Amino acid sequence: MRTMKKSSEQSYDQEHQQNELHILQEKKSQLDALLQITQSLSSELNLLRLLQRITAEVKKILEADRCTVFLYDADKNELWSKVATGIRKEIRFPADKGIAGYVFQSGEVLNTPDAYSDDRFNPEIDKKTGYHTRSILCVPLNNKMRETIGVFQVLNKKTGTFTTDDEHLLSAIALIAASAVENAQLYEEQRRSFLSFIETLATTLDTRDYITAGHSRRVALYANEIARIMKLDVTARELLYYASLLHDIGKLGVPEIVLFKDRKLTEDEYEIIKGHALITKNILQKIHFPKKFREIPTIASSHHERLDGGGYPVGLRGDDIPLCSKIMAVADVFDALTSRRQFQDRMDLEKIIHLIDTETGVAFEPYVVYNFKFIPLDRLIMILEFGHTSELDRSDLDKLKNYHLRDIVDIRSKSGKSDLELEIENIFMRYYLRQYRVD
Amino acid sequence: MRTMKKSSEQSYDQEHQQNELHILQEKKSQLDALLQITQSLSSELNLLRLLQRITAEVKKILEADRCTVFLYDADKNELWSKVATGIRKEIRFPADKGIAGYVFQSGEVLNTPDAYSDDRFNPEIDKKTGYHTRSILCVPLNNKMRETIGVFQVLNKKTGTFTTDDEHLLSAIALIAASAVENAQLYEEQRRSFLSFIETLATTLDTRDYITAGHSRRVALYANEIARIMKLDVTARELLYYASLLHDIGKLGVPEIVLFKDRKLTEDEYEIIKGHALITKNILQKIHFPKKFREIPTIASSHHERLDGGGYPVGLRGDDIPLCSKIMAVADVFDALTSRRQFQDRMDLEKIIHLIDTETGVAFEPYVVYNFKFIPLDRLIMILEFGHTSELDRSDLDKLKNYHLRDIVDIRSKSGKSDLELEIENIFMRYYLRQYRVD
Repeated sequence: MRTMKKSSEQSYDQEHQQNELHILQEKKSQLDALLQITQSLSSELNLLRLLQRITAEVKKILEADRCTVFLYDADKNELWSKVATGIRKEIRFPADKGIAGYVFQSGEVLNTPDAYSDDRFNPEIDKKTGYHTRSILCVPLNNKMRETIGVFQVLNKKTGTFTTDDEHLLSAIALIAASAVENAQLYEEQRRSFLSFIETLATTLDTRDYITAGHSRRVALYANEIARIMKLDVTARELLYYASLLHDIGKLGVPEIVLFKDRKLTEDEYEIIKGHALITKNILQKIHFPKKFREIPTIASSHHERLDGGGYPVGLRGDDIPLCSKIMAVADVFDALTSRRQFQDRMDLEKIIHLIDTETGVAFEPYVVYNFKFIPLDRLIMILEFGHTSELDRSDLDKLKNYHLRDIVDIRSKSGKSDLELEIENIFMRYYLRQYRVD
Repeated sequence: MRTMKKSSEQSYDQEHQQNELHILQEKKSQLDALLQITQSLSSELNLLRLLQRITAEVKKILEADRCTVFLYDADKNELWSKVATGIRKEIRFPADKGIAGYVFQSGEVLNTPDAYSDDRFNPEIDKKTGYHTRSILCVPLNNKMRETIGVFQVLNKKTGTFTTDDEHLLSAIALIAASAVENAQLYEEQRRSFLSFIETLATTLDTRDYITAGHSRRVALYANEIARIMKLDVTARELLYYASLLHDIGKLGVPEIVLFKDRKLTEDEYEIIKGHALITKNILQKIHFPKKFREIPTIASSHHERLDGGGYPVGLRGDDIPLCSKIMAVADVFDALTSRRQFQDRMDLEKIIHLIDTETGVAFEPYVVYNFKFIPLDRLIMILEFGHTSELDRSDLDKLKNYHLRDIVDIRSKSGKSDLELEIENIFMRYYLRQYRVD
């Protein structure tokens, strides 16, 4: 409202114009801020950093002293500070407390010039942090389903109190922030859902076949070790991990009378078993995998292909076999041979390595086998004993971690062993030959 | 640039001020437009309508004659008009053609005052549509992974050519639009992925057990019919559908020697079979379901509970049994009894209905059975004959669609049937008793 009077019309006009100019200049800065924020939307992949940029921009443009994004934690029914300018420690409080709690519950915008004269204000956080809150502007963060997922709060406007324009601007920015938060949460949900589905599919196998229970998981862990040593990138390793979890899913299509036969298989029965690779492919091809995992059916179903073309289901040769399948092939045979079967201990490690060496260049890719032998012994034990890892002695593992699979094979074949070598061998073999009570 | 000269300093100042005022007023409208657009972000759930609101706003604020959002179709390597002001027909062209194609490929902003003097311009669309393009401003739509997913294009600025400010504003709006498109695509991907996973899990059962192949799918379809007649909402129906697809997944944990036994089961064997309900729950509890589907494990595993508390796995009574499980129970028994087994036709429909009636109020919820009998005959046949639906005669189905399951039971028990009733009975029974070649 204008309160001053001017004698001359002209100077009144001039002042009016300047006043308007001032308001418009503010609008321009606000537009620039909003443009900046939308720009961050695309240049910042990381949600935390994105919200940090948004809050920094908001603090500046609204001339606020502090700016906080509180998100709702449904498990604890609390609001917590995902991002807060000027504060390092997380702030956390019940989701119905204070101005923020009120805004969260009601979904209303709240603009109060004097917090302490508002009954809804919760002074406890000021007490805790030593801050003195004066003015508060707080707006809800709403997702697409119109659920409130948090609040966006600014404190203590430097030049007075927050205006209606500030409310509109912060509401708009809150929508952008909420959309970014929702997007990130959606990605995370999708990832968790995806992983749990794959693990469930993989463990349906264990439900049926307790003898080889855990096989898929261990193959995935061995394969991941080899891929890590070969320095494959994160996407390729994820792909390999999931494909490994699912590689034997086709065994669900093999009758138990054949699958669990404890005597020698007839040729026909062996052909039926071999069918599992193709069934794996057929089952997995029905899944609509996200783009980066489209190759899972092919990779998973090629784990019995051989370099010399004598494998199945296709009989691929050499470089026609996907690298991930070559890694899985070595991991698969190693787990099969090191598994404890009913009434049967693990096969001798020397015998296993000899078997793999004999097939290297014929069935297995030499470079993969080479890298496989660099799996550190502590990790090897953790995978061999997967399911019993809580019973492993941390200090034993620490002693093993600088030795690799190929070292233990060397040490075992040596005649004159050093004390340290003897200790490493003893620790490793104690776990390798360990007996468990049959559950 | 200023080209006019003024004699008096004052009037120069005034004009300068007015000019600035004009620019700032434009900024203000732009801010308002951007605020409007972010507002639509939350109020518009539907992607198409959201983009329509955004393009309408952009057309106005940039004083453009036309405004189009082109999205990339990866399968065809084309750009297509998801939304276009003033045009009803879809525009589609190769993803490397024209100004839009250039912007899509390069990721650059392109602002051309005269399209026809730019070599990259593709005049074919003008020829096709009868439009005359003059000025073009075209900006890329980038997602979070910095992949270009389409372009945002405005044509023919009414007051001249597009400015640098227009470029900035459209770029900001394009980011908002891209984020909305990405979000919608993410939802869709998630939905498809989820569905395909559930179907895959469900069909792993069929892989093993070809005799009851399709059972889970048919139970899901019957259950959905009942839920539709009971007017359950979309979320409840989806929940029921997915839970039904998965209800027997626990049978993967039942040994084949018991599951496929063709003689009478011993009491012990029957106990093993009953274990499948609990195994279903255990398997499904490992899946991280989206919030609205959290009840799937409970619902799916309660399909053998009975109103009188004599069911399994828990022995729940009456209203403690989830409604969806009660629906599934009726669907499950109906499909089990109407399935063709090896060397065996479907059971008599009268016998089935009698069996269900006898158990109503004891095992089955009366209200569910009541609604179940209102399944229209055409849909009943389509589910009974699922997998053979292409062999059904459309005109037969049309004749059946005004009769319900309970009508056919009535008609069959009647002595004096009308000609129409005779025809309905004949059609229905022809499909019900149909024989198929064993594949």
